[in-house]
Amino acid sequence: MNVIVDFSLVPIGVGTSLSKYVAKCEQVLREAGLRINLHGYGTNIEGEWDEVMQAIKKCHTVVHDMGAPRISTIVKIGTRIDRKQTIQDKILSVEKKAGPSL
Amino acid sequence: MNVIVDFSLVPIGVGTSLSKYVAKCEQVLREAGLRINLHGYGTNIEGEWDEVMQAIKKCHTVVHDMGAPRISTIVKIGTRIDRKQTIQDKILSVEKKAGPSL
Amino acid sequence: MNVIVDFSLVPIGVGTSLSKYVAKCEQVLREAGLRINLHGYGTNIEGEWDEVMQAIKKCHTVVHDMGAPRISTIVKIGTRIDRKQTIQDKILSVEKKAGPSL
Amino acid sequence: MNVIVDFSLVPIGVGTSLSKYVAKCEQVLREAGLRINLHGYGTNIEGEWDEVMQAIKKCHTVVHDMGAPRISTIVKIGTRIDRKQTIQDKILSVEKKAGPSL
Repeated sequence: MNVIVDFSLVPIGVGTSLSKYVAKCEQVLREAGLRINLHGYGTNIEGEWDEVMQAIKKCHTVVHDMGAPRISTIVKIGTRIDRKQTIQDKILSVEKKAGPSL
Repeated sequence: MNVIVDFSLVPIGVGTSLSKYVAKCEQVLREAGLRINLHGYGTNIEGEWDEVMQAIKKCHTVVHDMGAPRISTIVKIGTRIDRKQTIQDKILSVEKKAGPSL
Repeated sequence: MNVIVDFSLVPIGVGTSLSKYVAKCEQVLREAGLRINLHGYGTNIEGEWDEVMQAIKKCHTVVHDMGAPRISTIVKIGTRIDRKQTIQDKILSVEKKAGPSL
Repeated sequence: MNVIVDFSLVPIGVGTSLSKYVAKCEQVLREAGLRINLHGYGTNIEGEWDEVMQAIKKCHTVVHDMGAPRISTIVKIGTRIDRKQTIQDKILSVEKKAGPSL
């Protein structure tokens, strides 16, 4: 089952600077061979359900290994069976209808 | 890895009445032997990471089989390695500190 | 505009024990006169859009005043114009269809 | 109170093609003068708390006016009082640490 996911992980108990943990997750997702797109409040991921969830699980393991006692993650999961659609398709179909930025 | 999860699934393309799809997911989660707690905007789930994610994946499969062309799901995933904590522990620790309802 | 919301707040930079901050938010929401329902990964809230959002904003202000340098909050917001529905209505309509727990 | 928000809106009861509703929300957010960044599963927004929440409320009003009986929206809300940080700052600080794409 192909999924488009939005993933954002918050390590708890390691202070306020979180970028090194998020950066480590980016590396884990890339090494898993997933198509990813970093944005200001998470990362879009495209791929097979099991591969994506295993990669997110590995992010939790790695961030715990970096010393984070707790983690709170939000995952939005989109699946569809009516047609194939990539992240880029979704963005373009909105941009075409929204018109140029002001 | 033990997880406490909050799961809410929105089937898209099947009209406005969603309770029969959510009810079906409750049955899938129960059949998976997971400890669950239904609330007004989702279901808390406790269990092993892989078992919980496989059950959520099965919810997507079943709801697609019920005729939903698209699904958008939100999952909050909490893990911790400093100590064991159940959903009930989390609720009681807040209720103790919040004091009695007005 | 009436809303049913699910709200979960994570203070960042204040260690791993978060219950006193969540408890404080429960008090803020009660003082705002909102109908709330605490669960294992957040709080359901019912009320008017502006009242609910102002109360959530006050939670951020209060938790920052308690010493949290950063906060990451997730809010699920449900609105409908086809009919009135409470949190209890939503739970009962699912429980009726899901049948008794195993 | 300045916020960085991630906003994704799902209209319910209007079929499976949602891009025209999401596009309409982009226009509402732009007209509110907010800095926004569309991605594959939502839109990052930067601005003052009240302005951002009023714009999201207007998105609900407009999408209901377009014929959607129900809406389910997810909002991630980030606030911090230790220093100023933009969406671009957050992305760059992760990219610097994550290293170049494979």
